[in-house]
Amino acid sequence: MDFMQEAIKEANRALELNEVPVGVVIVKDNKILARAHNLKESEKDVTCHAELLAIRQASKMIDNWRLSGCSMYVTLEPCPMCAGAIIQSRISSLYIGTFNTSCGACGSVLNLIHNPNLNSFVNVKWLYNDICSNILEEFFKLKRPN
Amino acid sequence: MDFMQEAIKEANRALELNEVPVGVVIVKDNKILARAHNLKESEKDVTCHAELLAIRQASKMIDNWRLSGCSMYVTLEPCPMCAGAIIQSRISSLYIGTFNTSCGACGSVLNLIHNPNLNSFVNVKWLYNDICSNILEEFFKLKRPN
Repeated sequence: MDFMQEAIKEANRALELNEVPVGVVIVKDNKILARAHNLKESEKDVTCHAELLAIRQASKMIDNWRLSGCSMYVTLEPCPMCAGAIIQSRISSLYIGTFNTSCGACGSVLNLIHNPNLNSFVNVKWLYNDICSNILEEFFKLKRPN
Repeated sequence: MDFMQEAIKEANRALELNEVPVGVVIVKDNKILARAHNLKESEKDVTCHAELLAIRQASKMIDNWRLSGCSMYVTLEPCPMCAGAIIQSRISSLYIGTFNTSCGACGSVLNLIHNPNLNSFVNVKWLYNDICSNILEEFFKLKRPN
């Protein structure tokens, strides 16, 4: 199964709700444990980014906050809040679909994931995918027509 | 009303649950809008830090993710996840009771709050309070007796 494609399906669900289109799946033993899309505007809550919703769901599924052995596939580079949650949850691998040039915390604006002081063991892999960036570009073009 | 004392009451509630004792209140127009304590172990969920729980609660209270005009009083310097959420929620003022030397993101280990690239307008004030640090020291002393 192409897990980034599954994350993109989630991003499309966010788009249908007029949310910034970001999607996530969390995978363990080659199976999807949790899937989520950005719901910040719908829920009127900044903590409803796709990554945090998926972490909450995955923790519930395995009845443990430690998500070691899990991989997260996310269409957009996580922000500091989400990168911080990813580090704390001990997610093992993070696959990212595109850069976040406004607040990406895995290297674009700052780098929390590889900060030697934060005790992070997340293995980051960039899976550049045009769909992940195009869906965002189109969204913002419609939002800001001029 | 001494809002840091109210945050300390929340930290004590966390302590009763054998959680790392951190407490938060969010204040608007001199009234407490939300109060929360760390529930990470009880909820088995890394996103259940006191700050995130209080932000969720406050957003629900005012039906808006924008918490501008609100102040947060927290007994311990926020971690990167919580500092990121504080920035995004547009909380105006952050009052901190003590340093977090393991992962404090308001200057101790790194500084997200004053990172010029993160579009943060949070006004940070340190309200050093021995109770905030002592309650943590005692907790960890009991956890790690040697």
